[in-house]
Amino acid sequence: MMHILVLVLDLGGTFVFAISGAMVAVKYRLDAFGVLVLSFAAGNAGGITRDLLIGAIPPAAIEDWRYVVVSALAGTITFLWYPVTRRYSRDVLWLDAVGLAFFAVAGAEKALVHGIHPMMAALLGMLTGIGGGMLRDVLVSGIPTVLRTDLYALAALAGAGVVVGGHLLQVAPTMAAVAGGCVCLALRFMAIRRG
Amino acid sequence: MMHILVLVLDLGGTFVFAISGAMVAVKYRLDAFGVLVLSFAAGNAGGITRDLLIGAIPPAAIEDWRYVVVSALAGTITFLWYPVTRRYSRDVLWLDAVGLAFFAVAGAEKALVHGIHPMMAALLGMLTGIGGGMLRDVLVSGIPTVLRTDLYALAALAGAGVVVGGHLLQVAPTMAAVAGGCVCLALRFMAIRRG
Amino acid sequence: MMHILVLVLDLGGTFVFAISGAMVAVKYRLDAFGVLVLSFAAGNAGGITRDLLIGAIPPAAIEDWRYVVVSALAGTITFLWYPVTRRYSRDVLWLDAVGLAFFAVAGAEKALVHGIHPMMAALLGMLTGIGGGMLRDVLVSGIPTVLRTDLYALAALAGAGVVVGGHLLQVAPTMAAVAGGCVCLALRFMAIRRG
Repeated sequence: MMHILVLVLDLGGTFVFAISGAMVAVKYRLDAFGVLVLSFAAGNAGGITRDLLIGAIPPAAIEDWRYVVVSALAGTITFLWYPVTRRYSRDVLWLDAVGLAFFAVAGAEKALVHGIHPMMAALLGMLTGIGGGMLRDVLVSGIPTVLRTDLYALAALAGAGVVVGGHLLQVAPTMAAVAGGCVCLALRFMAIRRG
Repeated sequence: MMHILVLVLDLGGTFVFAISGAMVAVKYRLDAFGVLVLSFAAGNAGGITRDLLIGAIPPAAIEDWRYVVVSALAGTITFLWYPVTRRYSRDVLWLDAVGLAFFAVAGAEKALVHGIHPMMAALLGMLTGIGGGMLRDVLVSGIPTVLRTDLYALAALAGAGVVVGGHLLQVAPTMAAVAGGCVCLALRFMAIRRG
Repeated sequence: MMHILVLVLDLGGTFVFAISGAMVAVKYRLDAFGVLVLSFAAGNAGGITRDLLIGAIPPAAIEDWRYVVVSALAGTITFLWYPVTRRYSRDVLWLDAVGLAFFAVAGAEKALVHGIHPMMAALLGMLTGIGGGMLRDVLVSGIPTVLRTDLYALAALAGAGVVVGGHLLQVAPTMAAVAGGCVCLALRFMAIRRG
């Protein structure tokens, strides 16, 4: 049950973040292959780093072929219909908030399942959420945007923190996951509205 | 037997890629130590990442001292005889193709041996081939060239794919390795000839 | 006993390097969160990489919450009192030498405890010392300074080498650690004095 929750959240976050990676790649005029690499990096680097750090080896994104397929799909769609996807780039910002919420919650949950200290589990949830975007930015040789916009990472940390808090209070994991996701989403939505 | 095949291919690829790392380091006017670090990074980052991801820990390049020695040797030769090695930089392009073929084949083979899903094994073969060059470029603060020249990565993927295909069809591993290496080499040679 | 020695050296090095990360972050005008990330990265990337490579998973900096707390403390102090910390930036150079000595010694010692080949243990000691600074520089999109100032890495390698040499000669680990630390410190102090 827990396993399926993490899987669904992880794949959903991967899809959305892979789109953001592909859009950056197209902006930097990378070719088709570069687009696919940045899709995969943005969609999976956070989760892979989390899995290496908690000892879930091979990481889910390597063991389970669906992560690659989902990333490639998102990258291909973005690449082929770039004029269209670009027009919706503001909506992508909303999608990105959803991806962040999924990853923060899934990351914290998986770390807890692997017996990591609660405080570190919350931080690993945050890392799962921001890691993909950081690698994406380093690969196109920029300073990761997350280092300049702190509310982004704090939203992820808050969402992950709720999951961990729920765990400590022995709330049902699904409930804690929904609550954590809502907190992360609400914080991001407020930040996006304010510009 | 399989073990020896992977070792020989890995060390050969390491040597060639370490040269490419050292040449970039000299170009960016790094000192002797910087040259050795870039030699090691270019020659081993792909294999180390592969090993971490498939759970072969400690990675071969850490467990076996020969990888460091081979990298340091390649770096030292390039550094000391730079005027000479530079003159042959076009030939290095050919050598690089050989290194890519070695790594793609060895990477796919080792992933299969560790029970990774065939599709992921092919991608890990490609990653083994391109990972070193990517870290080399990130360390001198550029966008990895492989993200801009897609035939490079596709050649590695094709070579790794042949190894995986051979595995699925139960061809003898050595045969599949030779065939995969030839496919990768042929694709790179065509690309280099066309400029 | 060995365990406590490594822990104390590791936490001390983390604190000092986290300060250096925070100072770079403030210089690049990152916000509070960016400062904390660079503090953690500079203070822990070397040790985390070492632990992943030697198979000590989860890495100490993930399993033990004290590493995060120490990093955050160093980052917060640097951020809040930047005008003060900046005035002492030359003294930070001395502190940095102490951190390097701690990490080089702790890194080599931990690698030996995990049964890594002596030569690789010395190199892992060096990597523990320089890894944090390298990630710090890559995240603000520069070429790692360590690649341009070779005596820095050589000092770490010398200190780690003494620890490994002591291990091979069956000297008591604490003695070897003190000697290795002194060698690293002496080399750095000479380099800093000469400018």
